[in-house]
Amino acid sequence: MKFCSSCGQPVALVVPDGDHLPRYVCAACATIHYQNPRLIVGCVPEYEGKILLCRRAIEPRLGFWTLPAGFMENGESLQSAAARESMEEALAKVEIGSLLAIVHVLHAQQVHVLFRARLLDPSVSAGAESLEVALFDESEIPWQDMAFRSIDFALKRYLDDRRAGRESLHFYDLDAPPKPAAN
Amino acid sequence: MKFCSSCGQPVALVVPDGDHLPRYVCAACATIHYQNPRLIVGCVPEYEGKILLCRRAIEPRLGFWTLPAGFMENGESLQSAAARESMEEALAKVEIGSLLAIVHVLHAQQVHVLFRARLLDPSVSAGAESLEVALFDESEIPWQDMAFRSIDFALKRYLDDRRAGRESLHFYDLDAPPKPAAN
Repeated sequence: MKFCSSCGQPVALVVPDGDHLPRYVCAACATIHYQNPRLIVGCVPEYEGKILLCRRAIEPRLGFWTLPAGFMENGESLQSAAARESMEEALAKVEIGSLLAIVHVLHAQQVHVLFRARLLDPSVSAGAESLEVALFDESEIPWQDMAFRSIDFALKRYLDDRRAGRESLHFYDLDAPPKPAAN
Repeated sequence: MKFCSSCGQPVALVVPDGDHLPRYVCAACATIHYQNPRLIVGCVPEYEGKILLCRRAIEPRLGFWTLPAGFMENGESLQSAAARESMEEALAKVEIGSLLAIVHVLHAQQVHVLFRARLLDPSVSAGAESLEVALFDESEIPWQDMAFRSIDFALKRYLDDRRAGRESLHFYDLDAPPKPAAN
C-alpha cells in the first residue's frame, strides 16, 4: 500500500495514537488503513466414500491437486462460501456438514477454514479454475501432488476421523513457507 | 474506495474478466482490489462460575457491555487474538478453550468468532477501550445493556451449554442491523 484509497494521497507506515502496531495512515486525510487476515473457505466433498479433488488451472500451484476452496466474499456465510467454491471449481453440488479444520497460515495473512461435505451428484466437471476434477478412493489420493499444506492437513484429519467414526475440529498453525529441498 | 492504493489513480467498480462480482479495479495500473470479510475474535472468560464482561469506552455502542473481542491482526492465530483482546480490554490473563460460536454478521462484512476461556486471575481492570470491567454471576448479567447481538448470542449459548455439561459449536447469521423501536 502506497496511496490512500479514500483521497489518493501518499500513506505512511506509523503507529497511530492509542494503537500498538504500525498502520498505513494517510498524511492528507488521516484515514487509517487496517490490514487483516483473509478467510479462505472450502470443503471435503464425499460421494460413496470417494473424495472430490480439483487440479488447479491457475497459479499458485498450477497443476497440483486441492480441495474446492477460495476467498470468502462479503455477504456470505462460511458454509455458503464453501458450497459456492465447490460449484465454481468442480460444478459440484454439495451439502455442507460439520467444521473440520481451521488452519492459520501466518506468513500469508490467511485463515483457511474447511468443512466436511456430502457431494449430492457425482457428475462433476472442471470449472474455469480447474484443469480436471475427479473422485478418489482413499488409496488413490495423489499425496505427492497436493497444492497446499493446509489442504493436506485437513484431508488427512478428515480421513483419520472417518476411520475412527468421529467428527472433530482440528486447529493447525503454518508459520513459514516450506523450504526448498537442499538439492 | 475511490483511489488505487498501489498507484494513487482513480478506481472503477467493474466485473473483471473471468470474475462474477464487481471489484474496484484501477484504470491506470489494472490492480484489482478485493474486499473480503474481516474476523472479529473474542472469548467468554470464566472464573469460579462468573463471566468477565467489559463496558465499552469507545463507539460503536459506547457504554454497553460486551465480551473481550476485537479485530484479528496479521500474524496471529484465532486463539492468540482472543487472548490478546482479553489482555488489552480487561488486563485479563486467559487460557483459551474450545470454539463456542461463529456468527456471520453479513451486513457488516464481518465474521465473529468466540471461544470458551478460563480466566487465570480475577484481578482484572479496565484497559484503554473499556470504561469498567467486572465478573458477573449468571443471574447478574446485564442482558438489557449488551453491546452486540453476536455477543448476546454467544453468551447465551455458552450458558446453555454450561448448564447441559457440553461444549458445542454454534453458527448464526445476522443479516440486518436491528430496527429502531417504533417509538
